[in-house]
Amino acid sequence: MKITVCRKAHFNAAHKLYNKNWSKEKNTATFGKCSNDNFHGHNYELIVKLYGEIDKETGMVFDLAKLKGIIKSEVEDLLDHKNLNIDIPYFNDKIPTTENLSIFIWEKLRKAIDIDCKISVILYETPRNFVEYTA
Amino acid sequence: MKITVCRKAHFNAAHKLYNKNWSKEKNTATFGKCSNDNFHGHNYELIVKLYGEIDKETGMVFDLAKLKGIIKSEVEDLLDHKNLNIDIPYFNDKIPTTENLSIFIWEKLRKAIDIDCKISVILYETPRNFVEYTA
Amino acid sequence: MKITVCRKAHFNAAHKLYNKNWSKEKNTATFGKCSNDNFHGHNYELIVKLYGEIDKETGMVFDLAKLKGIIKSEVEDLLDHKNLNIDIPYFNDKIPTTENLSIFIWEKLRKAIDIDCKISVILYETPRNFVEYTA
Amino acid sequence: MKITVCRKAHFNAAHKLYNKNWSKEKNTATFGKCSNDNFHGHNYELIVKLYGEIDKETGMVFDLAKLKGIIKSEVEDLLDHKNLNIDIPYFNDKIPTTENLSIFIWEKLRKAIDIDCKISVILYETPRNFVEYTA
Amino acid sequence: MKITVCRKAHFNAAHKLYNKNWSKEKNTATFGKCSNDNFHGHNYELIVKLYGEIDKETGMVFDLAKLKGIIKSEVEDLLDHKNLNIDIPYFNDKIPTTENLSIFIWEKLRKAIDIDCKISVILYETPRNFVEYTA
Amino acid sequence: MKITVCRKAHFNAAHKLYNKNWSKEKNTATFGKCSNDNFHGHNYELIVKLYGEIDKETGMVFDLAKLKGIIKSEVEDLLDHKNLNIDIPYFNDKIPTTENLSIFIWEKLRKAIDIDCKISVILYETPRNFVEYTA
Repeated sequence: MKITVCRKAHFNAAHKLYNKNWSKEKNTATFGKCSNDNFHGHNYELIVKLYGEIDKETGMVFDLAKLKGIIKSEVEDLLDHKNLNIDIPYFNDKIPTTENLSIFIWEKLRKAIDIDCKISVILYETPRNFVEYTA
Repeated sequence: MKITVCRKAHFNAAHKLYNKNWSKEKNTATFGKCSNDNFHGHNYELIVKLYGEIDKETGMVFDLAKLKGIIKSEVEDLLDHKNLNIDIPYFNDKIPTTENLSIFIWEKLRKAIDIDCKISVILYETPRNFVEYTA
Repeated sequence: MKITVCRKAHFNAAHKLYNKNWSKEKNTATFGKCSNDNFHGHNYELIVKLYGEIDKETGMVFDLAKLKGIIKSEVEDLLDHKNLNIDIPYFNDKIPTTENLSIFIWEKLRKAIDIDCKISVILYETPRNFVEYTA
Repeated sequence: MKITVCRKAHFNAAHKLYNKNWSKEKNTATFGKCSNDNFHGHNYELIVKLYGEIDKETGMVFDLAKLKGIIKSEVEDLLDHKNLNIDIPYFNDKIPTTENLSIFIWEKLRKAIDIDCKISVILYETPRNFVEYTA
Repeated sequence: MKITVCRKAHFNAAHKLYNKNWSKEKNTATFGKCSNDNFHGHNYELIVKLYGEIDKETGMVFDLAKLKGIIKSEVEDLLDHKNLNIDIPYFNDKIPTTENLSIFIWEKLRKAIDIDCKISVILYETPRNFVEYTA
Repeated sequence: MKITVCRKAHFNAAHKLYNKNWSKEKNTATFGKCSNDNFHGHNYELIVKLYGEIDKETGMVFDLAKLKGIIKSEVEDLLDHKNLNIDIPYFNDKIPTTENLSIFIWEKLRKAIDIDCKISVILYETPRNFVEYTA
C-alpha cells in the first residue's frame, strides 16, 4: 500500500537572477528588479514529499524525524543564510531561479534518501511564487 | 526537463447559487443559504500552475512577473469587486459555483498563455472549500 | 490574575460602500471599486478577545465553547451569507465599512457576554485589510 | 468534465506510536519521543478531495455542505477529543501513525460517499508533517 | 527607545480538563469533551514577546537566537510530547487550561530572561482558541 | 470613537548584521550566521496600524487603498529587491536589524500620513521572528 509522506522546512538566502552571457540591459529586460546588482533575498519554504510503501511493522513510509535530519544536513546547513550566486558553486554557471534551485535540492535529497520512493520538491520563493518538481 | 511554476492571486466578488429553471424551494433545498436572494460574497484565493519545459537561458518555465500580469488583466480586472451573477455574462446561464468559476478562469488563461504547457487552476472560495482543475 | 482569552470565527457576506447623501461621482472618488453598484463580498475572519479574571475552580476566564456559541448566535447566524446593505437594518443609514461592522459586532457581543471583562473585536475584511476595536 | 472539489476539517486527539510486539528500547529507538508512555497529542488538519464529474444542473461535483456533514459524522465525531490508541478499536493492532490514520479515514469516507469519484485524504499531524493518500 | 521583539515556537502535548474535587458529571457539564477520560491533545503554538530598550551597539533588544534557545530549554524540552496532567507536577493541583499553561510558561521564561523587559506569552491551543498573558 | 485600521504589505531584501567597529570574531559571536560576508535575505511581511477617529461621513479612519499606496511609495518601492546594507544610506551607520528597520519604516510613514493618529509597525523578518513598534 503506497502513500505520500511530507515534511516542511525553511531557509533564507540572498540571490540575484543574472545571465553572465547577456548585457545588463538584456538582464534587466528579462529579470526586472530580480537582476539588481547588490542581491536581494527570500525566506524559502520547502516541502519534501516521498511516495512509497508503508512498512507493516512501523506503519511508516519513512521516519519523518529522519527526513527532517536529512533536509537539515543536505539542504538547510548548505543554503541557509547564504548567497546562492557566490557561496554555492552549482550556481557558478546556472541562474538560481526557483526552478533550478528546486532541481538542485531534489538531486541532493535523491542521493541521501536510500529507499525506493518517488521524491517531490515544492519550493516557495515567496508566499505567492512557488515551484513543484517530481521525479 | 519539465517542472511546475505557480503563482497565487486573489479577488473578491459577490454571487449566489441559483438555478433559474427551478423553484425557490428546490434552490433552497439544493444550495441552502448560498441561494439567499440578495447575494453574499467571498475573498477568492487563486493559484495558477504551469507545467512545462525549463528554458536553458533563463532558467525559467515562464516569467512569473508576466504570469502575474496576465492573471491581473484576464482575471482580477474582470472579476474583482464584481457581482458574478449580474456583471459577468458567462454566468447568465451558468451557476457561479467554484467549479464553474474555475473553468471560466482556466479558459481565460489558456487563451492568454502562449507557451506549450499544462495549466492548473486552484480556486479557494473560502479557506475550507476549494476546487482544482487541470487540463 | 487577569488574562485574555480569544476565539476566531468567520462568516461571508456581500456589501458595497456607498454614502446615499452623495453623488455617484463622489462615492466613486471616495470608495473606488468598493462602491460598485451590484455589490461584492468577503470572507470575514473575526477574532473576539475577552480580558478578565481567571476563575480559580475552572482555570478559565470564560468557557471558549460558550463563547463560540455566542458568536454563532449573535454574529454568524445574523451576518453569514447575507447582504450587509440590504439584509441588516443597522446599515440602512450607516456605511458597512469594516470599522462600522466591527462596532456593530462589538455591541452585539457586549450585550450577550455577562461577565466583567474588556472585549476586543478584530475583523479581517481581507487577509490584508483589518480593523481592531477595544472597549 | 471532471474536476476536484476539496473540503478542510480538523479534530484533535492524543496518541503514541508503540509497537506492542517490540521492547521499550526498540520502540524508543524507532519512534523517539513519539513513543512516550503517557501519550501526547495533535491538532489534526484534514483535507478531503473528490475528483468527479460536474453535474450540469447544479454546477457541482458534490455538495460541499453535504461533504462537511459526512466528514463530521464519519470522522470528527469519532476521533475528536479522543485517544486513538485506547478509544478507537481499529488501532488495537495497528500503530496510529499519520499514514495508518489517513487510510482509516479514507475507508470511512469511501463507504459514506455514494458517487463515482476518486477520493484523496491529506492529513496534517503538525503544520510540518503530513500525509497524502489517494485511491 | 523601546520596542517589542517576538519569537514563535511550538510543542505538542496531551491533556484533559478535569477538576479532581468535582464529580464526573460536573466535570462533563463544565468542560464537555475536553474532560474525556483518556486525554486528547494539541499542537500548541507559542509566541513570546519582549518589550525593552534597543541596545545601541547591536541594534537589538535581545538576541532572538538566544531567545529561541531559552524557549527550547525552558518550555519545549519540558512540555513537548508530554502529558500535561501526568508528566508536569505543576498540574497536579491545577487544571491545564490554556490560561494556566500560559502563566506556567510565563513564569519559566521570566526566571530565564535576565534583562529588564515586559514579557508577553500568546498560546494557541488550536488555530481558533488562544490566550494572551502579559506582565 | 477611535478604532485601529490595519494593512499588510511585503517586500524582500538582502542584508547582513555586522558592526563595522567590531572584529569579525566579535561579529560572529554576536550575530552568528546573520553576519555571513556575502549577505542573506528575507521576505519581509509588514503590518501598518493606524489608531484614530472614525470619520462620520465615510465610516473610515483612513482609506486603506490610500494607505496601500503610501506603503508602496514610501516603503516597498524603496526597499523591495534591495540590499539594505549597500542600497539604503540610512544603514551606512546603523545595523539593519528588524528593530532598526521597523523604526526606519515608521519614520517614513509618519511623515507621509497626514492625519492625527498613532502608528504601529509590525515587521516579520521570518514567520517566526518579528518586531512591533508603536509611537
